Amino acid sequence: MSSALRVANTLRPCAQRAIARPAAALATRQYASQAFFPDEPAGPVVKGAIPGPESTKAIQKLDKVFDTRSLNMMADYRRSYGNYLADLDGNVLLDVYAQIASIPVGYNNAALLLGASSPEMASAIINRPALGNFPQHDWADILETGILKVAPKGLDQVFTAQSGSDANELAYKAAFMWKRRVQRGGPDVEFTAEEMESAMNNTVPGAPKLSIMSFKSGFHGRLFGSLSTTRSKPIHKLDIPAFDWPQAPFPSLKYPLDQHAAENAAEEKRCLEETERLIKEFHNPPAAIIIEPIQSEGGDNHASPEFFRGLREITKRNDVLMIVDEVQTGVGATGKFWAHEHWNLQSPPDMVTFSKKAQTAGYYFARDDLKPNKPYRQFNTWMGDPARALLFRGIINEIERLNLVENTAQTGDYLYAGLERLASQYPNEIQNLRGKGQGTFIAWDSPRRDEVLKSAKGVGINIGGSGVAAVRLRPMLIFQKHHADIFLERLEQVIKA
Amino acid sequence: MSSALRVANTLRPCAQRAIARPAAALATRQYASQAFFPDEPAGPVVKGAIPGPESTKAIQKLDKVFDTRSLNMMADYRRSYGNYLADLDGNVLLDVYAQIASIPVGYNNAALLLGASSPEMASAIINRPALGNFPQHDWADILETGILKVAPKGLDQVFTAQSGSDANELAYKAAFMWKRRVQRGGPDVEFTAEEMESAMNNTVPGAPKLSIMSFKSGFHGRLFGSLSTTRSKPIHKLDIPAFDWPQAPFPSLKYPLDQHAAENAAEEKRCLEETERLIKEFHNPPAAIIIEPIQSEGGDNHASPEFFRGLREITKRNDVLMIVDEVQTGVGATGKFWAHEHWNLQSPPDMVTFSKKAQTAGYYFARDDLKPNKPYRQFNTWMGDPARALLFRGIINEIERLNLVENTAQTGDYLYAGLERLASQYPNEIQNLRGKGQGTFIAWDSPRRDEVLKSAKGVGINIGGSGVAAVRLRPMLIFQKHHADIFLERLEQVIKA
Repeated sequence: MSSALRVANTLRPCAQRAIARPAAALATRQYASQAFFPDEPAGPVVKGAIPGPESTKAIQKLDKVFDTRSLNMMADYRRSYGNYLADLDGNVLLDVYAQIASIPVGYNNAALLLGASSPEMASAIINRPALGNFPQHDWADILETGILKVAPKGLDQVFTAQSGSDANELAYKAAFMWKRRVQRGGPDVEFTAEEMESAMNNTVPGAPKLSIMSFKSGFHGRLFGSLSTTRSKPIHKLDIPAFDWPQAPFPSLKYPLDQHAAENAAEEKRCLEETERLIKEFHNPPAAIIIEPIQSEGGDNHASPEFFRGLREITKRNDVLMIVDEVQTGVGATGKFWAHEHWNLQSPPDMVTFSKKAQTAGYYFARDDLKPNKPYRQFNTWMGDPARALLFRGIINEIERLNLVENTAQTGDYLYAGLERLASQYPNEIQNLRGKGQGTFIAWDSPRRDEVLKSAKGVGINIGGSGVAAVRLRPMLIFQKHHADIFLERLEQVIKA
Repeated sequence: MSSALRVANTLRPCAQRAIARPAAALATRQYASQAFFPDEPAGPVVKGAIPGPESTKAIQKLDKVFDTRSLNMMADYRRSYGNYLADLDGNVLLDVYAQIASIPVGYNNAALLLGASSPEMASAIINRPALGNFPQHDWADILETGILKVAPKGLDQVFTAQSGSDANELAYKAAFMWKRRVQRGGPDVEFTAEEMESAMNNTVPGAPKLSIMSFKSGFHGRLFGSLSTTRSKPIHKLDIPAFDWPQAPFPSLKYPLDQHAAENAAEEKRCLEETERLIKEFHNPPAAIIIEPIQSEGGDNHASPEFFRGLREITKRNDVLMIVDEVQTGVGATGKFWAHEHWNLQSPPDMVTFSKKAQTAGYYFARDDLKPNKPYRQFNTWMGDPARALLFRGIINEIERLNLVENTAQTGDYLYAGLERLASQYPNEIQNLRGKGQGTFIAWDSPRRDEVLKSAKGVGINIGGSGVAAVRLRPMLIFQKHHADIFLERLEQVIKA
């Protein structure tokens, strides 16, 4: 009996059965119409009110030591499996929110459990290195067979980090160092005494008055630099000092897209023009722009591939870097591994950041001039986490083995078609349906959004919102047509109620 | 055979023997003069140049995908054990740097290995929750039996984070929200429309012009807010935009302390007065000050308990919070669990931040008014990491079982006495010896510091520097007198050479 199996034996009967499947079943093949988790529950189970008595007790206990005001549901991960999230009272919900879009290949995924029970993982957990100084002997292998194997086209280097906010801020730092290097005249120009002295005092020229430009309603994190670029909701930003950095307009598209083609094109043109004007004129010049392929936290706002291609041209023309924030869109959810693959850019973005479904974080880049001219400029104690990098490698293997990007594209089309039918039946309940051809990264607006999210729990669906009025779908990559059927049926119940 | 033991079997013969010790040996008892890792190597092994041929190959391979300019040594953690760090060429060094002061209880610690091979850990790795929304059912237990069990006196709540920089920035955010709440007139005063609108534009009043005050040569991290308070070296700060925040003077003490008592007291008085003046007069008023008990990255700079008690009084008098950054000093290294316990404060600091040896991060606090008035103001996807919180619990258990804080106090006194002897023999080589009574958190200045660090490897010692000229000792908590003897003997070889 393998050690992982022994581990699995002590809990989670479902995971145990899955892990005990013959090795042949683990070989790469098409699972087109086959269930990825054959022993998943057949559907949600709702035993009573959520939270029930056991969850209520646990919440009261937790409230004494942890802020529970944002608590959505007290989960029991021992009993969660595949697409299903369990609680302490026997309720089992179909989860289309997936830990704010971060669980990629199912709760208690058997292959990940095997990896998490390996000696390699145990060592990574207990012997965490300072990677910049004392990397482990196989760090190159872990990067090459994992994080770098799925690097966006044209970007072959990575700087690892610990969260999405962290990844974005490190990308900003790389952009600022790059911009000052250009302004200074190259990598070999030494820092002046004035620069070194003023940097220590947080003043120019050592601490330059440069900026990162972001877009209205964008979300890029909550630390001080990333929060200065976040423009989604006041509650994220109130009372926190921020940098005087510019905000460009993000297109406000009308739906259905095919009925508003000319208007939407004009809106995107307006936004591109204003963006370029700001780049040229803003008093703290941008070193880079940052943008999400689909604005997620800000309300599931889309723009066309033409818009993004236009942005790429503007940034090139004005010697400004383009950072694509794929923290929420990346790793398969839009039916491409990276959402920006939908754009067919002539030249790749300068940096792409990731976190969430990767379960580790960082930014990809290619240009050698994005490496600082000296060591220790981009550095910290841990510089990422080999344990989480191993996990991402396992996730990538699962995605390949089960062909999950293709699955998400297909399931997404099926789900979208079902939602279109519901939208035509209940036009007031499902407004501005969006995300066609974007995998399962689908959303719509609801005039009674918070009520819908709450009622969904009562029929066994765990679902999240974004922006002010959007219901956002963020199922895992193992979400299949039979899950979509259950989801559509239950959603209709909520709408009718 | 337990699954952990099976895991251990596949590698690390030393760890395997340790884990196979009879259970009785694991019971709590005094290990006063006994080796914590009885099967540790008897001493360093240096087989040749470092890096040797295998390490050089591995470094060349890594260099293709990772910035190796800050690489100190290519490590083989499979063969590292206790206080000893191995490489790929058979070299085994006594490690008094410990991953930049972050490995607490030994490489391949058997008790941690057991924990890391448990079903609980595997689940925490693969089912990482969005803790603020969907905490796991036993999150309260994990906090109470781990992180909160060692909470600094007077601070009974915790906000978990992912790195030291992250922890400090979250503490700053808590301070800013608190300050604005006071200015606004209490938690129930609603945000104005003007505040909400201006926050979205990064301008006052929503994004206030408040500051965090830090001290000359302090180090608090490298993200945008934390870097604005870091004042150690230009290389950390150059080219990165920074907030216009104030910097107070940190006392520059003369050694030996007992020969410069009056001068040093005058210097501390001067610094306290200037700090208070800055708090009252700086154009962007501070919501908080942040200070390290011993400035680590900045050169191992100490101040007296009286100085810190003076600071506490100044902050109380001026309605400014006091954040103590224990990222490097915390978790036992100074012979107290928290270094600020050396100060005997009348009232505890308002927040204490931690990371490194805790292997997870966050800030402790007590005052209820440091909880934001509404949910989602202090929030992110992961909000810490249950896997790393479990590891910290295991570390705390090891510290208690082996009485490691007391060990560090005793070993530190022994080591300091040995260094005093060397300093009197070689007064030009060991200058400004400091850290007496501070456990193993000891440093001195060397006129040829970088050469000493490099030569130390040749005699089997891995050691780090801080500031411009300091050699800093940061051994693990399992560093014992027999290790100190080896260290002192080898150091003398380096000095003589």
